[in-house]
Amino acid sequence: MTMNLIEKIEKANQEAVDIINNAQPVLVDMKYAKDVLEGLGKNTILHAGPPLEWEEMSGPMQGAIVGVIRYEGLAETEEEAWEVATSGKVKFGANHAYGAVGPMTGMISYSMPLFEVVNETYGNKAYVAVNEGLGKVMRFGANDDEVLERLTWLEKDFAPIMKKAIALSGGINLKVMASRALAMGDEMHQRNIAASSLFAREIMPHIIRTTGDAKKLERIVDFIVGNEQFFLNLAMAQGKATMDPAKNIEYSTIVTTMARNGNKFGIKVSSLGEEWFEAPVNMPVGLYFPGFTEDDANPDMGDSAIMETYGLGGCAMAAAPAVVRFVGAGSTQDAINYTNEMYQISHGRSTLYTMPTMDFQGVPTGIDIRKVVDTGILPVINTGIAHKEPGIGQVGAGVVTAPMECFIKAIKAYGDKLNL
Amino acid sequence: MTMNLIEKIEKANQEAVDIINNAQPVLVDMKYAKDVLEGLGKNTILHAGPPLEWEEMSGPMQGAIVGVIRYEGLAETEEEAWEVATSGKVKFGANHAYGAVGPMTGMISYSMPLFEVVNETYGNKAYVAVNEGLGKVMRFGANDDEVLERLTWLEKDFAPIMKKAIALSGGINLKVMASRALAMGDEMHQRNIAASSLFAREIMPHIIRTTGDAKKLERIVDFIVGNEQFFLNLAMAQGKATMDPAKNIEYSTIVTTMARNGNKFGIKVSSLGEEWFEAPVNMPVGLYFPGFTEDDANPDMGDSAIMETYGLGGCAMAAAPAVVRFVGAGSTQDAINYTNEMYQISHGRSTLYTMPTMDFQGVPTGIDIRKVVDTGILPVINTGIAHKEPGIGQVGAGVVTAPMECFIKAIKAYGDKLNL
Repeated sequence: MTMNLIEKIEKANQEAVDIINNAQPVLVDMKYAKDVLEGLGKNTILHAGPPLEWEEMSGPMQGAIVGVIRYEGLAETEEEAWEVATSGKVKFGANHAYGAVGPMTGMISYSMPLFEVVNETYGNKAYVAVNEGLGKVMRFGANDDEVLERLTWLEKDFAPIMKKAIALSGGINLKVMASRALAMGDEMHQRNIAASSLFAREIMPHIIRTTGDAKKLERIVDFIVGNEQFFLNLAMAQGKATMDPAKNIEYSTIVTTMARNGNKFGIKVSSLGEEWFEAPVNMPVGLYFPGFTEDDANPDMGDSAIMETYGLGGCAMAAAPAVVRFVGAGSTQDAINYTNEMYQISHGRSTLYTMPTMDFQGVPTGIDIRKVVDTGILPVINTGIAHKEPGIGQVGAGVVTAPMECFIKAIKAYGDKLNL
Repeated sequence: MTMNLIEKIEKANQEAVDIINNAQPVLVDMKYAKDVLEGLGKNTILHAGPPLEWEEMSGPMQGAIVGVIRYEGLAETEEEAWEVATSGKVKFGANHAYGAVGPMTGMISYSMPLFEVVNETYGNKAYVAVNEGLGKVMRFGANDDEVLERLTWLEKDFAPIMKKAIALSGGINLKVMASRALAMGDEMHQRNIAASSLFAREIMPHIIRTTGDAKKLERIVDFIVGNEQFFLNLAMAQGKATMDPAKNIEYSTIVTTMARNGNKFGIKVSSLGEEWFEAPVNMPVGLYFPGFTEDDANPDMGDSAIMETYGLGGCAMAAAPAVVRFVGAGSTQDAINYTNEMYQISHGRSTLYTMPTMDFQGVPTGIDIRKVVDTGILPVINTGIAHKEPGIGQVGAGVVTAPMECFIKAIKAYGDKLNL
């Protein structure tokens, strides 16, 4: 008996969803980018989203790169750094191509410490930098001395202590932690208060055993407990570690990556491997911090759409009714509606990420490009909003959709590949 | 224009609900019971619920008292402690009569350190001991050397450090913390994982600044992060501090206290002051830990019904769909149904304790004895279940109702007082 094409696709997509559900992402270490990201040179700077040239980059991404150039000692002053950035001496690359992810501008460079997350089921690894906190931070395009001092502190003081603490913990199962946080009202993209608190609680006994240096201990403890979005970066590496094994399944139409660079939105599809299907990004719609309006907003940016790729963030909005107010998306019922819509474009459901508010149904898992094109329903992404000018930072949070064009391009490529 | 009685009652009840809503309970200090509880002697042992005699006490309460007698040095061996307990040398008292509350057996004695919570709006204070953790602990009737060693450690090491940490914090607003935890799926009686995590996050930076003694620091950090019910006791003192100012409002039919001693359930009503209206306690219905059944269960016990008295716990079940499984109470819809029923017997709603899962409605606030008797709907309490024999500990968790007889007795007393 031979299967027809539809059956082959369904089987392949079920395999992808099974792989996603079988993932066991565990935080195992903290290492320097130069030691783990293959091909990363002293003058390589990685960014969020699909690859792009300096001229195509938005204000905050250029601002962040200028900051990184100074942080890495490739220039002294900001003026010199702008020159270096445009000189061709710096090589740019997409995080995803190096096994990493980063929120918003998503900067990763040579000297930065990265969390290492291993998917214990499949053995693959994913990397992410430390979340810097809220406000004026590099991921939102800020680049002043305060931002650079924090990066240096993360590298010199934070990383060695965190490395020891993770070792003492014996590894932290991020899947279990995220599952608990989902039951505590996080969707883990724009709301990470529960996950960050659970992580702080878990790591703290180990942190205090790493050093007798009271000053170092105080700053690291203050830093971890002071950032309610601390867990976001871990959840993103968790997402990449979860999704990567679902790549390259013949016939599968499941989306394995969604990422934005402030200019283009790119997706990857399982059976189509590492090819990006790109379209211009949309503008987020949301709420702005006092003093800012949509005129200040940068277009959609960041690898953080990996959260929605594995069923959290906008897909899990029903689990986090409190987030709908933060992103200006309406009421509890609206949150439930978003999740119900995401079920319509997903192949399956998570077996572990369940939502008490939805009577313990699993989050939508495995976005199917066919269903997106058929229904016209687009993946919904909860996102931070950066100021469009370099050096300013976050100005709000909102909701944005992936552009339909990405899915249409992918469907066409899929058809071409199968000679349909 | 004179008001008729109904109007007077409604006005008085609104005043009570306003007082409850205006409360600002803040954790301000940790002090020893002997220094703050007026009339507490070296040989006084306080327990949960309305007052009762030794002979009326259930197994776990007797077991706990035998443990306290040894902890306070009133006897050496367990055998001697049983003799002392029955000798008349020990004086028993209800926590509520001394300005305190305690979960389950609710033991408070001379040497124990207590959290001090001040209601900053009204200036009144409430006290509670430290939650010992789960399993074999005194509040569930356990009394062996491990239990007593922990109590001594709480007194000698934990308390001085916690006292300093609270001072460094400048006081912790428990109302704000509980409000956030409610948005994170806690109902704060049987589920305190969010509140306990938020508290750990808040206190940790201060804890590590109190001592250079690494060993002491490690044990206290491990203890705090290791107990997901740590916040329960704070939430109870918060409840007492919130409810006490609502006492003694002429004409008010609002319940100001609910507490159980393992034998009797007692309530107090605002306009009826400090009089207990008692009836035999019910048996909780719930889920048992492996190896235990309802045959092992002790009848309902603890001052922790103060949680439901101010609108949390069973009243806020809709905010905590995950708790309904823990207490064996059904589905998400059942949780919503419980809360909707509690609205029917409450005068008002909380202005701060809102439930995202109920589109940000406030929790039911101010149980009205008239509505309980009229509708036949009884306050629902989420509760731990102790083994009925002394020395064993917790065997499960479930749901229990307050007995109707308490409310009928109170209504009669109310009528008598007003000569109706």
